Amino acid sequence: MTFGAYLPPQAEDGPVPVLWYLSGLTCTHENAMTKGGFQETAAHHGIAVIFPDTSPRGEGVADDDAYDLGKGAGFYVNATEAPWSAHYQMYDYVVKELRGVVEENLPVNDRHGITGHSMGGHGAITIALRNPDSYHSLSAFAPIAHPTQSDWGRKQLGAYLGNDESVWAEHDSTLLLEEYGWKGEILVDQGASDQFLDLLKPEALAGMMAKRRQPGEFRMQRGYDHSYFFVNSFAADHVAFHAANLS
Amino acid sequence: MTFGAYLPPQAEDGPVPVLWYLSGLTCTHENAMTKGGFQETAAHHGIAVIFPDTSPRGEGVADDDAYDLGKGAGFYVNATEAPWSAHYQMYDYVVKELRGVVEENLPVNDRHGITGHSMGGHGAITIALRNPDSYHSLSAFAPIAHPTQSDWGRKQLGAYLGNDESVWAEHDSTLLLEEYGWKGEILVDQGASDQFLDLLKPEALAGMMAKRRQPGEFRMQRGYDHSYFFVNSFAADHVAFHAANLS
Repeated sequence: MTFGAYLPPQAEDGPVPVLWYLSGLTCTHENAMTKGGFQETAAHHGIAVIFPDTSPRGEGVADDDAYDLGKGAGFYVNATEAPWSAHYQMYDYVVKELRGVVEENLPVNDRHGITGHSMGGHGAITIALRNPDSYHSLSAFAPIAHPTQSDWGRKQLGAYLGNDESVWAEHDSTLLLEEYGWKGEILVDQGASDQFLDLLKPEALAGMMAKRRQPGEFRMQRGYDHSYFFVNSFAADHVAFHAANLS
Repeated sequence: MTFGAYLPPQAEDGPVPVLWYLSGLTCTHENAMTKGGFQETAAHHGIAVIFPDTSPRGEGVADDDAYDLGKGAGFYVNATEAPWSAHYQMYDYVVKELRGVVEENLPVNDRHGITGHSMGGHGAITIALRNPDSYHSLSAFAPIAHPTQSDWGRKQLGAYLGNDESVWAEHDSTLLLEEYGWKGEILVDQGASDQFLDLLKPEALAGMMAKRRQPGEFRMQRGYDHSYFFVNSFAADHVAFHAANLS
């Protein structure tokens, strides 16, 4: 597994906090490194940024012809169904395996924040809500907000986890927020002209944040689509948000 | 009818934009003038601020023993039912009558924004959405967001407008947003520890903003209650938001 790591100049003087950036469908670790625009602000605030891949890779790894299943589409779950279960363990990879590698090999401290885009926003929210002792800051860009009720979710959760939908709820940001809430503020940006709004279902998460009295901001950004231009435009805001929470 | 008007120093040099601030239940024109904290930022940006009263006043005006009906509780509607219809015409008062007085007598231009708190947030959103040619900027503090489904709303809309609930829909921010949307961005602040959250129903408006792909920000502010301390804490943000839209 390949991952990207940005270390700010401050890391030369001692351990720095970490921001995890989880990418969306079809991405490798590289897309956000080159197009996300996080590094400049991370350098300013003295935060490391980790860019994991979105699925297992390699010749022996199961795949599907569709762009939204298999390689590039791990959905940040631990698959239980064949043929996926052999390698698709992206939840544990992010929460445990890669975290261990990062903490053991890089000059970072135990203050970790998490964010992500689209499928990665889904990953960030679901992983943070289920592991509040491990993450201290949470934001998302255009997350897949309610995958148990979306074609971006039902297909993948069914393939990876099987047909028992009660199991899927542990990977649905809206349902998890209703159950657990989040200890800090949550920052969510969503493009108002996003071409995938019907799949992302931001209204479910925004409504639940308000219903749950969840501190945070839900920002519907006029004119922005689903692209990395959108992510890049608000990357500095998110890094500053995490820096304030992690310092 | 008494109202408050703040004129910034820039008004000495020529007409300035206007921000309307609509107050909540029990307030007169005076509460926000003394406790809202809008003037300093309005002076900085060169914006006039108008503070209307919340109901007709005087000995011959109908009233009720409850704090949330009658004087101090006009709900920004034109009453059609006795005994209220004789004087309770607060919608027309804000949109037409007082606006005419302001435009004829004060050094203001035709760029108007509108905001308000609680019942006044309800007034601001409903008035702006129904009069998009007259208002160019919209925000709200802890608005009564879905009065047709709240005890802050059903009682008053029934008393002032009668029992035909289809008429009430023209005074419900969530329903109006669904029907019309808003041409610009909307800024909404809501205290996460507001003691009236069950009456305000922010989840209805936040969910509708996202469902409608309405550009704007819904901010759930951790620790804030329903008081003027809450309003004062974010008054500068709202004035700056309106200034950007009105300039």
